[in-house]
Amino acid sequence: MTAESRLALTSETVQALSQKIMDACAALACYTEVEGETNRPFLCPTTRQVHEYLTRWADELGMTTHEDAAGNLRSHLAGPTPDAPTLYLGSHLDTVPNAGAYDGILGVVMGYAMLEAVRGQTLPYAVEVVGFSEEEGVRYGVPFIGSRALVGTVDDMLELCDAAGQSVRDAITEYGLNVEDIGEARYKGRALGYFEIHAEQGPVLQDAGASLGVVEGIAGQNRFILNFVGQASHAGTTPMNLRRDALAAAARFAVAAEDVARATPGLVATVGVMGALPGAMNVIPGEAHCTLDIRHAKDEVRLKALQHLLDTAQSVSQERGVTVTITPKLEERATPMSDSFKALLHRAAEAEGLPHPELVSGAGHDAMIMAAHMPSAMLFVRSPNALSHHPDELVLVEDVADALRLSVRFLHLLAEENA
Amino acid sequence: MTAESRLALTSETVQALSQKIMDACAALACYTEVEGETNRPFLCPTTRQVHEYLTRWADELGMTTHEDAAGNLRSHLAGPTPDAPTLYLGSHLDTVPNAGAYDGILGVVMGYAMLEAVRGQTLPYAVEVVGFSEEEGVRYGVPFIGSRALVGTVDDMLELCDAAGQSVRDAITEYGLNVEDIGEARYKGRALGYFEIHAEQGPVLQDAGASLGVVEGIAGQNRFILNFVGQASHAGTTPMNLRRDALAAAARFAVAAEDVARATPGLVATVGVMGALPGAMNVIPGEAHCTLDIRHAKDEVRLKALQHLLDTAQSVSQERGVTVTITPKLEERATPMSDSFKALLHRAAEAEGLPHPELVSGAGHDAMIMAAHMPSAMLFVRSPNALSHHPDELVLVEDVADALRLSVRFLHLLAEENA
Repeated sequence: MTAESRLALTSETVQALSQKIMDACAALACYTEVEGETNRPFLCPTTRQVHEYLTRWADELGMTTHEDAAGNLRSHLAGPTPDAPTLYLGSHLDTVPNAGAYDGILGVVMGYAMLEAVRGQTLPYAVEVVGFSEEEGVRYGVPFIGSRALVGTVDDMLELCDAAGQSVRDAITEYGLNVEDIGEARYKGRALGYFEIHAEQGPVLQDAGASLGVVEGIAGQNRFILNFVGQASHAGTTPMNLRRDALAAAARFAVAAEDVARATPGLVATVGVMGALPGAMNVIPGEAHCTLDIRHAKDEVRLKALQHLLDTAQSVSQERGVTVTITPKLEERATPMSDSFKALLHRAAEAEGLPHPELVSGAGHDAMIMAAHMPSAMLFVRSPNALSHHPDELVLVEDVADALRLSVRFLHLLAEENA
Repeated sequence: MTAESRLALTSETVQALSQKIMDACAALACYTEVEGETNRPFLCPTTRQVHEYLTRWADELGMTTHEDAAGNLRSHLAGPTPDAPTLYLGSHLDTVPNAGAYDGILGVVMGYAMLEAVRGQTLPYAVEVVGFSEEEGVRYGVPFIGSRALVGTVDDMLELCDAAGQSVRDAITEYGLNVEDIGEARYKGRALGYFEIHAEQGPVLQDAGASLGVVEGIAGQNRFILNFVGQASHAGTTPMNLRRDALAAAARFAVAAEDVARATPGLVATVGVMGALPGAMNVIPGEAHCTLDIRHAKDEVRLKALQHLLDTAQSVSQERGVTVTITPKLEERATPMSDSFKALLHRAAEAEGLPHPELVSGAGHDAMIMAAHMPSAMLFVRSPNALSHHPDELVLVEDVADALRLSVRFLHLLAEENA
């Protein structure tokens, strides 16, 4: 048997495994806290059923599985030697309210499917499939409890409280895990890296006509709330030169945000909220507020555009006798993906004859957390109609087949490099 | 006694009458439906106390007074002959909730004060001071019940209902008037014209350092609600070129409204309301709405700017794959003031040595209704800090003194013209 034939999956295998992936995602979507929709916040009771389903699959593959103290599902496939490095595969198993079936789940399920595809072959590294317990930030307002436990930086999250007043610590205990073991959740030994498959959740691959994309990096982002205060007055009796129109300043700011993003390749800037007080047709707004969300894969590009917008907020306000207060709500640096892993993904795509555009991830993912500790990479699967965080979220079985072929090829290329 | 000395008011008279005007406004502000604020909607019970107060003053001046069937207070000073034409003086006696003491009331009170100033002199015309019953539109949502009764165009308002379900017709009956006599409220005989003194309710005179201004005309206006529909999507994963951002279109529209108004002398354009859905920092708005209020003294100028803005709403929407629905809410033509009356007001100001800038009224007034039926003019009194529809609304006693001198001179000039 040649090396080439050993690496190639038969089309029957790809077809069967792709359908198995789709079926697993559909089955797991039925475990929910809310009848009639998919809704699984961090460590909700139905998490256990999800874990049991995946553990049965891991058992078939000869993996050893446990829940760590942060509620992550950890399925370990031993390497050829005890000191072999470990490749981590996975994504998250929690969901937003009224979720689709693929966001997060697909990446975990594909981890098991990849190992089923290479079953019986000896890899020069161990593989651990991780189903992270929390990535969406729904229950505690901040995301990544699962991945932060895996890299050992979760301690400062344990006292966060959910809307019902229950802390992360207590949620872990209530679920039946021992929070004192949380330090044991940290990965051990040499990490080869982390590879995450995820639905794109955007329109870029659909627009490009590509089933898959290699993630260039995860965008850094800022969020702000801007409050403008001028002077309410009569829309009929106040000439333009004597107005202090707070909404006029906010509208100029929103236009500037769109303008700078359109003029800066890869930048996105969004004003998602805007309002005016007192809010009457015939009264000049004395107060207005809006938000800014700005993201780019390169921090220096984002920060330059941001400074321009903050300056603009000041200048459009000053011109109108309006004061503006700018409150930062979020700042995250960009996370580049591993160059060596990206190169392997491109090589794998070439070998499989698949288009392999690079694209930026504008949303956060567990790979953001992992990338600070090990070489990390992501593969995006096309999202038809860009729907995500929505029950009609979809991935196409033929795109999943492409992702499976590329990912298995990636495992083999990584094996060659680490032989 | 020369003609000149006969016309001149002594400074003592001006001072005393100006203070009497201020005192009357303060006294009338105490008649209210709501303890702790001034609040007199159409034909509320305390209207009668206002009418009794002013009737006593009219009696002292030898006037005959009655309430017409629309609740207007009508005080008539006979002319030299039964067929002498009648000059109408006045404004409105209803108020907005939590009102100041001068909006409307000042013009009625000054009508009596002007006649007190010329007491004993024979004018070649009759004078009727009118305290209109309704101008603010608070109770029935549309204004001018009083002045429309005086010009005979109120019939289509009688079946309007207030928030409690009571019709105008029933409100008139409940107050104790006979609605069947409403046709009798129409003015009779030859009308010389209508002259209304009113607080400016804007900052123009204060900014110009003038106590008084001659109203050039009452602006025509349009109001619209604009609804923009695009597609909500993820602020991080949707590149700028694939967005259908409804708020971005609305913000461009608001900026265009300010731009066209700034570039067009005398035009005011206001976006008083703006909002976006779903209204999250990290979601591109799929829906947005805003309002437009646009006014100018010349209809052709207003309509040209309006067409530009409606075209802009379409173009900024189309560029973004957004649809816009534009709903008209109000359209009023501009009302020019009488050239001959304005000329008399300017001559009177010159004679009294007062600055007399012209300015447009951006708000509606009873003079809008009267002007379709007789020569009409308005004099604005400076509004310190432009406050109106507010309990701190103010006019200065020295500005009232200027207004009194100018108005009495106007009566005399009108007398010369009609001698």
